[in-house]
This record gives sequence, C-alpha cells and structure tokens, in this order.
Amino acid sequence: MTLSSSPHTPTLDAVVAAHAALRARRPLVQALTNAVSTNFVANVLLSAGAAPAMVDNPEEAALFAGVADAVLINLGTPTAAQVESMRLAAAAAQKAGKPWVLDPIAAGGLPWRGAVAAELLQFKPAIVRGNASEIIGLAGLGGGGRGVDSSADPAAAVPAAVDLLAHAAAVSASGPVDHAVGFVGGRPMLVRIGGGSVYLTRVTATGCALGALSAAYASVAPDALTGLVAAHAHFAVAAELAEANAKGPGSFAVAFVDALDAVDEAELRERAKIEPAVAVG
Amino acid sequence: MTLSSSPHTPTLDAVVAAHAALRARRPLVQALTNAVSTNFVANVLLSAGAAPAMVDNPEEAALFAGVADAVLINLGTPTAAQVESMRLAAAAAQKAGKPWVLDPIAAGGLPWRGAVAAELLQFKPAIVRGNASEIIGLAGLGGGGRGVDSSADPAAAVPAAVDLLAHAAAVSASGPVDHAVGFVGGRPMLVRIGGGSVYLTRVTATGCALGALSAAYASVAPDALTGLVAAHAHFAVAAELAEANAKGPGSFAVAFVDALDAVDEAELRERAKIEPAVAVG
Amino acid sequence: MTLSSSPHTPTLDAVVAAHAALRARRPLVQALTNAVSTNFVANVLLSAGAAPAMVDNPEEAALFAGVADAVLINLGTPTAAQVESMRLAAAAAQKAGKPWVLDPIAAGGLPWRGAVAAELLQFKPAIVRGNASEIIGLAGLGGGGRGVDSSADPAAAVPAAVDLLAHAAAVSASGPVDHAVGFVGGRPMLVRIGGGSVYLTRVTATGCALGALSAAYASVAPDALTGLVAAHAHFAVAAELAEANAKGPGSFAVAFVDALDAVDEAELRERAKIEPAVAVG
Repeated sequence: MTLSSSPHTPTLDAVVAAHAALRARRPLVQALTNAVSTNFVANVLLSAGAAPAMVDNPEEAALFAGVADAVLINLGTPTAAQVESMRLAAAAAQKAGKPWVLDPIAAGGLPWRGAVAAELLQFKPAIVRGNASEIIGLAGLGGGGRGVDSSADPAAAVPAAVDLLAHAAAVSASGPVDHAVGFVGGRPMLVRIGGGSVYLTRVTATGCALGALSAAYASVAPDALTGLVAAHAHFAVAAELAEANAKGPGSFAVAFVDALDAVDEAELRERAKIEPAVAVG
Repeated sequence: MTLSSSPHTPTLDAVVAAHAALRARRPLVQALTNAVSTNFVANVLLSAGAAPAMVDNPEEAALFAGVADAVLINLGTPTAAQVESMRLAAAAAQKAGKPWVLDPIAAGGLPWRGAVAAELLQFKPAIVRGNASEIIGLAGLGGGGRGVDSSADPAAAVPAAVDLLAHAAAVSASGPVDHAVGFVGGRPMLVRIGGGSVYLTRVTATGCALGALSAAYASVAPDALTGLVAAHAHFAVAAELAEANAKGPGSFAVAFVDALDAVDEAELRERAKIEPAVAVG
Repeated sequence: MTLSSSPHTPTLDAVVAAHAALRARRPLVQALTNAVSTNFVANVLLSAGAAPAMVDNPEEAALFAGVADAVLINLGTPTAAQVESMRLAAAAAQKAGKPWVLDPIAAGGLPWRGAVAAELLQFKPAIVRGNASEIIGLAGLGGGGRGVDSSADPAAAVPAAVDLLAHAAAVSASGPVDHAVGFVGGRPMLVRIGGGSVYLTRVTATGCALGALSAAYASVAPDALTGLVAAHAHFAVAAELAEANAKGPGSFAVAFVDALDAVDEAELRERAKIEPAVAVG
C-alpha cells in the first residue's frame, strides 16, 4: 500500500468486489486498540469476514505486523508499553508493505498522545479514520494550522482530511454522512457514504471497529481509498439493517454484529449509498 | 461537590429532576476502571445519558480530570501504572471541584489495593459505592474497627457506611435493597432503594457500571446523596424492565442496556422504590 | 490436583455429577486472561455456575491464587507485568494444590510467549487447553519434535496432546469434535466430545471461556480429565441450544451465555455427545 494515486474512483462495483475479496481471503488484522474496544473490534472483524489478533506488546508487535495482512493502531487508551508497540508495529508494517490504519482518538486535544500521533504519521498509514473533530485535530498537529474544531460535521473536516493526504493514502471523517478523501488520477477526490444509524453514536467502540474493518479492507482492495469506502459502506448497510431489529442501544449492538455477517452482494447493491467522487482541495 | 450536608432528603421528585439534568447535560465521565468492565461501563453510560472516556494513563489522567465532569475510580484490576493514574486523577478532581466516585473492589481483602484505597480516601470522593462486604472492608481499613464481614446484607454495612462519611459525602452498599447514606441537615440519614433484579448478580461489571452512573449523576445533582440515590433508582428501574425481557444472564445484559435508555420520568415515577430517609448513626 | 492417573474413564454420569458439584459449590476462578476475553470469560463463568475474579497484577496474583479454587492462565495478550503475575500465580497454585489451566494461545508461533509457556509448564498445570495447532505448537516447544502444524483437525493433535501429559494431567484440543486426553488406570486415554456449533468459531474468546470453565470444573471434579470433559460437554450442549436461537454471531453470543445457565442435568443427558474413552499413545 503506497501513497500513489488510485487509477479509478471507488464505485459500487469496486466495493462489491472488495467485499467478495474480504470473504474469500479472510485477512488477518493485528489490532493495537484501546481497552474499551478489544472485544467488540474482534467480534466485528470476525462477523464481517476477517480474522483478528490483538498482539500489542513490545516483544511481539513488530514480528506480528510482518505476519498480519493489516494493522490497526487506535489511540483510545494508550499506555507507555502500548505506545512503544505502536511505533514498532507501524514501522514493521511500513517496511513490509502492509497497510495500517491510524485512529487518532482525542489526539488533537491531549498533548501526550498528540505527539504520539504526529510521530506515527511518519510511518505512512494507508488510512487515517476518525470523527470530524479528530481529523481536524490531527491535521492541526501537523502544522496544517486549522487547529481543533469541535464541529461534528464531517463536511467541515474535508480540508483537514485533504491536508492529511500528505501522510496517508486515504482519510475519512465519520458522521451522519461519512466523508472519505484520497488521490484518484493524481487529484484529491471526495467520496461521501450515506446510510448508517444514529445508534452507532450510542454504542461504544463503533468507530474503533470501523477503523479495524478499514484495515481489513485495505489489505484486499486495489487501493486504500476503495478499501476505506468499502468498509464505510459495509458498516453503514449493516447499521441500517440492525436498526430495524433494535429496541435500544444494547440490542442494536447485537443486531449490528449479526448484520455485518449478513451483508452480502445483494444487500450492498440494494442499500449502499456511495456518492460519485468529486474533486476537492 | 463538598462534604457539606445536603439541605433536603432525596425524594422521587429530586431523582426525576436529576434524571432530567443528566439527559440535558450529558456529563462526561472519566472512568479509571477494571479490565473486565471497560466496555460495559462505557455502554451503560452512553445508554443512560452520559458520555464515557477511559483515560487512565499517568501522562493524561490528571489533565483529563480537569476536563471531565466527574471521575470514576474502580479498584477491580489495578496495575501499578493505573494506580499512579488514580492518585493523579483523584487529586486533580479534588482540586478542580469535580465529584469522583471510589469503587473499592476487594479493598478489604487484599492488602496492596487496600493501601491504595485508604490513600485515595484522602482525596475526598463525593461517593463511595460497593457491595456490603466491600463497604465494611473499606471502613475497617480506616481504623473503624469493624473489619471484614462476608455478609451480603447491605443493612449490615450501614454502620460502616456511616463511618466512611468521614471521607465521602455519600456512601452506598448495593444489594437486594440498596442502602445509601449521607448527611442531610447535618445529620447522617439512610435512604433505601428497592427494585432491581437478581440477574444483576449474574452479569459481570454491573456494580462497576452503577459506580460510573453514580459519578455521572453526582455531577448533575444538587448534592452527592441525591445523585447517588438517583443512580441507584435509574439502575433498579432499568433492571426491573430488563428482567421482563430476559431469558437468561446474556439477554438480560442486552435488555438492561436498552432499558437504561428507555427509563424516562414516567417509568421512574411508576416504578422507582425510594423509601423516605431515616436518621442513622 | 496431581498428575496421578484417574481411576475411571469419564462417563456421562461423571459429567452430570461434576455439573451438580459446580452448581452446588460455585468455585472461584482467578483468571489471568487476555484483554479481548476478560468480560466474556467473566460472564461465561457466572452464567455456567462459577465465580470469576480477574486478579492479574504481580502484587496480588500469588496471594489470590491461594484464595481461589482454580486459576486460568491464558497467553492471548501477555504484557511483561502479566507474565510476571502468571509465574507467581502458577507457582502459588501448584504449591497450594489448586488446579490451574494453561491456554497457550499462539505459543508455538511467537517465540517470546513460547518461552513463557514452556516455563509455565514447569508448574504442572492440571489442564492444557487449546485448538489443534496450539497444542501441536506447545508440544513442539517442549522438544517433542512434532513442531508447528497449521492443521485445524483436533485428531492430528492427539499425539502432541499425549506428549503434553508429561506436564499436565489432562490436555484437550478443541475443534468440530473436541479431543481430550489423560491417564486412566495408568494408561493414556482419549475421550472425544461432539456437538457444539460452528458459531463458536465466529465469536471471539469462546476458546478462552472454555479454558476458564475447564478450570472451574477441575476444582469440583474427582480428576482433571473428568473436569475437562465436563467443561467441554457443558460448553457444547450450550452452544447447540444457542445456535437454535441465533440469527448470526452477535445473537449467538448472547444466547450462548443464556444457555450456559440453562443447561441442567436433563439437557446434559439428552444432548451431551461423549464417546467412550479409548487407549492412545
């Protein structure tokens, strides 16, 4: 996975193909993630069609990044040892040409982890995924100058996301409509993905799980932007299916894991809301 | 939140008002909690109407306590680094006037964490919450002389809970009928809260989640005792609703998270079992 | 729990008796387990009829092993501090005559934890439980010479499991049909347990939970092999019941926790698939 431009814009056909590749290849995702999300991230990966492994100690993190198909690094609850593991895993993934995803939780608001996030960007993640304020906050750390913005509107994060394309092949800001950017044919392009469910904001670690699924897709898609859009689309369709069976946040979470498994080509073609790519930046 | 006496005894009207304040203000709760409970605590807070953040490393714990509305410190699975974070967060919360809750799991039975708990009491928690033997055990550490008692009857823990009012504004012992104590009009008073479900003892981390919800309520209620009683009442009503939809401990846990969201003023007024306060100690 | 031979082969009657003992005695299981599994392991133990405690710091691990009825040591996500705790807990359990279970996740494939696993075998676990390749990998570490095999067929792991009887009283490899070995009347014997559900491979930490349940049963059964077979049978019957109520991996996990509680003597007698023991090795 390099920062090179994608030859094509992500389309529904490309997403369907990535989904088929995920199910056929069952990529192994090494997740260095926060304490809140470990179980949910693992179950989301298993249900969607990937295999999880939470190897996050400094003794094994680099070795395992060479074995895994993709790596997730999530800054939710970093410890000193886990941060050392993150450095090692990101460096090993870069060296081995494995895609890795950075989920920069609260990096813009907490200086210690902000410095960690800025350092990790040097290892060139395939994807950066966060909510709007996290993407804006991370870009601000890099000298982009936009600083921290508490806005929850992903549209407001698009300029920051484009700035982050200096470090990552594709960047997304999650929200009511997800916004993903990447280079296509040498130009920065934006793809918006609709759908989903308001319950995604009422269950913890859903964003973390989307980051993990993005890593899985990045390892089977032809380019990072297509993988990222496919992960968002699979997630949003599953959330829409789950909401129909939910009585509240607890039953939504259960139905969502069921739905990630149930989403197939037909569901994607019927329900995925992927807008045509438009030039930005 | 100070140790000063509450002006009024907690009533159903006061609990309903605290619930409305929780939903309106959506307080941010920093949870330094055990490894078993992180995901469940976060989902309980989200569903009940608060916002969770599990910032528990020494580099960020104090800074975040100044940002959060309340702090939970739970001694279930302490590590050396987490204990250092607990000291920093408790001190920062005290300094910033933010309410914090101590959940002293097994502090009376394990000397290492017992010493940690005794030290943390110096930072004046708004609330101490535990089961009966934990409250008795913690009071024993403080020289109250009652020592450890394996009794599961919260009534037996009331004298120990009153002893702990030397350190905390309000103290509760969970059980079939929850017992909460605090100063009202300068006198120690007891409020008993009934309801709940036997399934609460068959699902892990329910007590931890109640501690976290108590922290959330402490930040929006007029005093710690009212907040504590409101948390117990919200919890008990949700458990009663959930039990009606449960086939076992697994489906109870899911229905309980749904029910925490569903509990509104009407449910509280119909189902909450809050006895009038009585003088104790 | 010693390495001495069992006097009888495990039968359905013996499993039913062990189940009754589990429910009557509610053993306390200390679980030093991976970050992904903590919550699920605790809920499985609670629902099946045991009591969990996740004490895994070096300051308390040995002390608590003397208090607990059994100990689980799971190598899924080891940290340096947790590994130190594992050494202390295993040594304390051996000294106190408490059964302990080793779950050697990935020990055959990752040298650092492989060395930890080999060292822990010196403290004589009552039970080693893993999937087929983990059992083969662990035996290979001990110089058994069979090395790592990626086969998922538990039958292929039987020779390795027999090799491990030099260290443990009973050893099992999980799979579509579980294979458990131990000495009976001085001879190594194999017991196969059928049933279960394919969903067990689609939910994270099910194997970890089976290891924990094996520890619980080892503390109430007359010998380690009987306890191990009882745990596998209870697990498989619950999984079969759960699959009938599952719409996908998410609802299976919930129904499975319900079913672990619901499994009683009648369900065991109707559904458990325990083959007669046969000599091996």
